[in-house]
Amino acid sequence: MPHKSESENIGFVEPKYYVMPEGEEFVLESGVKLPELKVCYETYGELNERKSNAVLICHALSGDAHAAGFHQGDKKPGWWDDMIGPGKAFDTDKYFVICSNVIGGCKGSSGPNSIDPSTGKPYGLSFPIVSIGDMMNAQKKLLDSLGIKKLLSVCGGSMGGMQALQWAVSYPEAVASCMPIATTYKHSAQQIAFGEVGRQAIMSDPAWNGGDYYEKDHPSAGLAVARMIGHITYMSNESMEKKFGRVLKKEKLGYEFSTEFEVEGYLRYRGDSFVKRFDANSYLYVTKAMDYFDLQEDRKLYHAFKGVKSRFLVIAFSSDWLYPPFQSKEIVKALKMNGIDVTYCEISSDYGHDAFLLEFVEETKLVSHFLERTRKKVEKHK
Amino acid sequence: MPHKSESENIGFVEPKYYVMPEGEEFVLESGVKLPELKVCYETYGELNERKSNAVLICHALSGDAHAAGFHQGDKKPGWWDDMIGPGKAFDTDKYFVICSNVIGGCKGSSGPNSIDPSTGKPYGLSFPIVSIGDMMNAQKKLLDSLGIKKLLSVCGGSMGGMQALQWAVSYPEAVASCMPIATTYKHSAQQIAFGEVGRQAIMSDPAWNGGDYYEKDHPSAGLAVARMIGHITYMSNESMEKKFGRVLKKEKLGYEFSTEFEVEGYLRYRGDSFVKRFDANSYLYVTKAMDYFDLQEDRKLYHAFKGVKSRFLVIAFSSDWLYPPFQSKEIVKALKMNGIDVTYCEISSDYGHDAFLLEFVEETKLVSHFLERTRKKVEKHK
Repeated sequence: MPHKSESENIGFVEPKYYVMPEGEEFVLESGVKLPELKVCYETYGELNERKSNAVLICHALSGDAHAAGFHQGDKKPGWWDDMIGPGKAFDTDKYFVICSNVIGGCKGSSGPNSIDPSTGKPYGLSFPIVSIGDMMNAQKKLLDSLGIKKLLSVCGGSMGGMQALQWAVSYPEAVASCMPIATTYKHSAQQIAFGEVGRQAIMSDPAWNGGDYYEKDHPSAGLAVARMIGHITYMSNESMEKKFGRVLKKEKLGYEFSTEFEVEGYLRYRGDSFVKRFDANSYLYVTKAMDYFDLQEDRKLYHAFKGVKSRFLVIAFSSDWLYPPFQSKEIVKALKMNGIDVTYCEISSDYGHDAFLLEFVEETKLVSHFLERTRKKVEKHK
Repeated sequence: MPHKSESENIGFVEPKYYVMPEGEEFVLESGVKLPELKVCYETYGELNERKSNAVLICHALSGDAHAAGFHQGDKKPGWWDDMIGPGKAFDTDKYFVICSNVIGGCKGSSGPNSIDPSTGKPYGLSFPIVSIGDMMNAQKKLLDSLGIKKLLSVCGGSMGGMQALQWAVSYPEAVASCMPIATTYKHSAQQIAFGEVGRQAIMSDPAWNGGDYYEKDHPSAGLAVARMIGHITYMSNESMEKKFGRVLKKEKLGYEFSTEFEVEGYLRYRGDSFVKRFDANSYLYVTKAMDYFDLQEDRKLYHAFKGVKSRFLVIAFSSDWLYPPFQSKEIVKALKMNGIDVTYCEISSDYGHDAFLLEFVEETKLVSHFLERTRKKVEKHK
């Protein structure tokens, strides 16, 4: 594990909320109108007068708006605190950093656990299916409300990288630079398969009850299994071997079905702790959005990037087998074929997909220089 | 998919049963005595007078004794029919081929769904935990009863390969040659992790009921999820992409949680069909046996192979990420360090772990020559 950054922490932060004003509309990719839209977000640093220093951070499947600093009473900071703060990669002395919870999620933005105004009860499965594009459009509403017309950068790892790519494609004029990390331009059959197995684990838990469980027992067992599957895919063979190997939790084999190996205990612990902080229905919605993600559609990938105007820094990790480097390289190739300014870095790491959260020392160097150069280019053009 | 072999099929076959005679004992690795031992097996070809042409085939997790030929009324032959029969890799004109169901399984050998003589009801979880070594010792009892003192060869893929390795280590005098295919010398942390998630999927299904479900609804939902996870690990990224890609089962995205992608339909189908033919408790026992498998223990691997007297053919497949080639290479290296005659072949294949069942054209060439050379060596020594 790399050493934690010794830079200053951002201190206490509070979530804020964007609520779509009455009279405005939010139409999803499916054509369905969302009756109301709420977006939970946090900001770090100050927006400058020209509103030209905004950086949007997009979170992954189980992330949320709380990317940095501490909530009152919390012992652990936000999920990317190593990267966001004064003097860090996303330097809050220079940049205005925004992170918002995706719609379909369960951490303050509209999602299946929100109250349906027409019934006064949680939506459950009556919440409409959302896409990565819909998540982006909710972020766009938020940015419009803050008066931010152009992002200095949009960045994210995993599902966050899909949102970043979608921004560069859908709003080329609104994105000066884009940093997709450990991600893909479309979910492959294997990626869909892992999504589907997670969903099946939840939906086959009787407590799931067709998504209607908010006033009863939640489908914790199913969600825990889904999370356990996820965790295997987030680590690499190497990192699992180094961290656990065949080490036992007890002195010797007990010839029983209890937790015997350290790795079993770890997975059960991660599964059990996840169900305390995440909504099973949101797991369905968010994984579905990823499975729908397909910038390529029925064409050569480079057609998807026509008209894109951002500079790119694409980062992948050598041992990431869930979003393997070859998918990032295909993005790079397609961008290059459009004459787009793109830098590709493959960070050598044993941490698998989790590396995007752990390899912050190397990421910091790459991201801080990339942001600085982007800032200079943007200022020159003014 | 390679073309099916055009050689003759073995025709109709019937399962046979070995039942341990009264007075004999069967003590498991755990020290527990199994009150009775039954082994279901099939044989193909004729045992020669000197009983020197016997080949033992060991099956994988979801396999059984029915490796070749047809059962009355069946449309599909045994699981390795492409490899076993007249003129095939395991040429039944020359060799006497034996395949038996592992103990702990659910296809005729003693396992959790067998009747406990002390209660008159299925054992369920009171069946003792078994190891790969225990599976081998049950096969040894069977072979002793057939008067076979030395196998010409022992062969298996995946868990079958673990049994084959265990034979060569535990009974060096009883094994002239050994063919471990797509396997490992010990389950790694990642392999244990996949085992554990499958077990958790079953054990968190309320219908599992602590293993006591034989007179009620079986934990089909949990077992189906376990099988779906398994299937992802049996295929490769490449083979999934070629077979399914992002192809839809319907005309366009429905924005709902039904089966939308072909790959989702495939996984659900495989999950649902598996629960009709496999016992959930056996899934627990057999995966546990694999997780326990560790020839290395707390020493250098080559120490494990001291005293081994078999010749080896070790086969791995390039795209197998569940039992990756590097694990086979470690076996080869450790054998070489003991001066053992070993040939290593890595077959280039997109089929992932499933390749050991599908790449029979190349396997046939490798196996038939290896068996033939082994036969000649054995005859020369007589």
